[in-house]
Amino acid sequence: MRADFQGWVATHQSRFEKVLHELLPRAEAAPQRLHEAMRYAVLDGGKRVRPLLVFAAGELVGADLARLNIAAAAVELIHAYSLVHDDMPCMDDDVLRRGKPTCHVQYDEATALLAGDSLQSLAFQLLAEHRLNGQARFPHPNPLPQAGEGANESLREFRANDDAQRQLEMIKLLAVASGSRGMAGGQAIDLASVGKSLTLPELEFMHIHKTGALIRAAILLGAHCGATDEHRAASCTPATLAKLDRFGKQIGLAFQVVDDLLDCEADTATLGKTAGKDAGNDKPTYVTLLGIQAARDMAQQLHRGALDSLAEFGDAAQRLRELADFIVFRKF
Amino acid sequence: MRADFQGWVATHQSRFEKVLHELLPRAEAAPQRLHEAMRYAVLDGGKRVRPLLVFAAGELVGADLARLNIAAAAVELIHAYSLVHDDMPCMDDDVLRRGKPTCHVQYDEATALLAGDSLQSLAFQLLAEHRLNGQARFPHPNPLPQAGEGANESLREFRANDDAQRQLEMIKLLAVASGSRGMAGGQAIDLASVGKSLTLPELEFMHIHKTGALIRAAILLGAHCGATDEHRAASCTPATLAKLDRFGKQIGLAFQVVDDLLDCEADTATLGKTAGKDAGNDKPTYVTLLGIQAARDMAQQLHRGALDSLAEFGDAAQRLRELADFIVFRKF
Repeated sequence: MRADFQGWVATHQSRFEKVLHELLPRAEAAPQRLHEAMRYAVLDGGKRVRPLLVFAAGELVGADLARLNIAAAAVELIHAYSLVHDDMPCMDDDVLRRGKPTCHVQYDEATALLAGDSLQSLAFQLLAEHRLNGQARFPHPNPLPQAGEGANESLREFRANDDAQRQLEMIKLLAVASGSRGMAGGQAIDLASVGKSLTLPELEFMHIHKTGALIRAAILLGAHCGATDEHRAASCTPATLAKLDRFGKQIGLAFQVVDDLLDCEADTATLGKTAGKDAGNDKPTYVTLLGIQAARDMAQQLHRGALDSLAEFGDAAQRLRELADFIVFRKF
Repeated sequence: MRADFQGWVATHQSRFEKVLHELLPRAEAAPQRLHEAMRYAVLDGGKRVRPLLVFAAGELVGADLARLNIAAAAVELIHAYSLVHDDMPCMDDDVLRRGKPTCHVQYDEATALLAGDSLQSLAFQLLAEHRLNGQARFPHPNPLPQAGEGANESLREFRANDDAQRQLEMIKLLAVASGSRGMAGGQAIDLASVGKSLTLPELEFMHIHKTGALIRAAILLGAHCGATDEHRAASCTPATLAKLDRFGKQIGLAFQVVDDLLDCEADTATLGKTAGKDAGNDKPTYVTLLGIQAARDMAQQLHRGALDSLAEFGDAAQRLRELADFIVFRKF
């Protein structure tokens, strides 16, 4: 990892931790145990891959940080809720997550269930209440473009309305990516596949939903926070979104192939979650289906394809390229 | 129940069943078992009290039915998801709901968990994607007010933008009512209260969140679908919303007091869910705290207070009054 990129990651990770800290309900507010469990499930853990993708896609389209913080938080809350529910005894029944006891072990099953439910509601609340037009809790650093006195007011009005429509787009995008046709649907297929042998297209279908949907959503949400200037190569135009979506689809699948490789190659201490779980659970993976070498080749191929999708963006896509490298070459 | 009101209820119930049928994912679409479970949890059951409140509040402010259908569906999906999760073994561990086996009994716990999660996502998806401005899947029966040729276009534009802001308001409202400071928070307090003796204010705090939040949200969502004409007494103005909120708060609490009375007075067959459950679970209720007679008096008092909040609306609030009667005098 280049030192420059490492610095970018570390800076965003530590800043974003403070953002999450602020956006989550305080532990002292009633119902305390529920709020504690929500904070436990989200704070102080994880690589924040999805938020980093939001920030990197946002940089590409020149989006400002206040907008990106909210989008990144919404995606991360959805991800955190899915981990809490996924770890429960009726699902994967796991006791270790991000190096800590899982939420239902630390608290209890009912609290974990409700904490997950509440994190999902909070994700949509954030996207709806933090106005893109600067009514957000965080100050809006980029001033509106200057124009004549009267025009400025109507421009502000116009921007606000345009932004409301885009906020609705973002909420829809995250809802679809989370639901039965996205992440939750992928988990349902995953559960149904235990002990079965899947074909490669079936495995791909499962992971495009289970892991891929939210990773794609993270990238698109970051892009939606940007300007919509048709004259700039890297603003949030339909063409940009299409390329980023292609990138997201490939990197989402690569993420899962690497996850499967790590599950059979790394140890529990390095992963911060139970290693060798998939084989133990008799779950089909890219490794069990293809073997280690072919799975590695597949990850490389997806990585190349992902980078190709960014070819036209030049330097503006540098962070996205580095994140693609990070996802494919990570050791944990 | 007056025959006229009975007809209104029956018409809306049967029409709304078709709306839900259309809005839920098809059972044939993958992942099938998950989609079947979602449909099982929502369709063919329940009195649809919350949707009826949406429709009644919508009538008060002259909202059109296409808008109200979406708002009512969103609220009902949140309600249905909460029942699915609430019935699970780690929560209330119940086997009967709306006269049928509960979702995790009919399917399995993991499917029930994911079905609940997906219903929540779908609720927010519906509110975000079905544009109030007539881009909804259901046709928009009320034409826009006529004006000059050119003006009509900008009026349409203006309405669309205004509507997007209001859609965001509605999403926020439903998210807050569902989350840790609303329904899910109330359930957490409920769980923590088992085996404890609560004071009346503590019990009220719990139910204002657990049941009250979503009932209030239903009424306000219905109102938000209406016109915002300052010159009409019953359009969606801040003053109207404040009165409806007072009505909703009181009727939400009355709903729970009556629920507690029914739980100890009615039998399982009539309720369609397990009767005597609260006493069996050693849960504090209005009946255990106040006794039957005082609980009945409290329901009456809340009922009167709720009707008082509607005093200024005249005939336009007739359906809301009848629903208040229905909630307080129901036998199931």
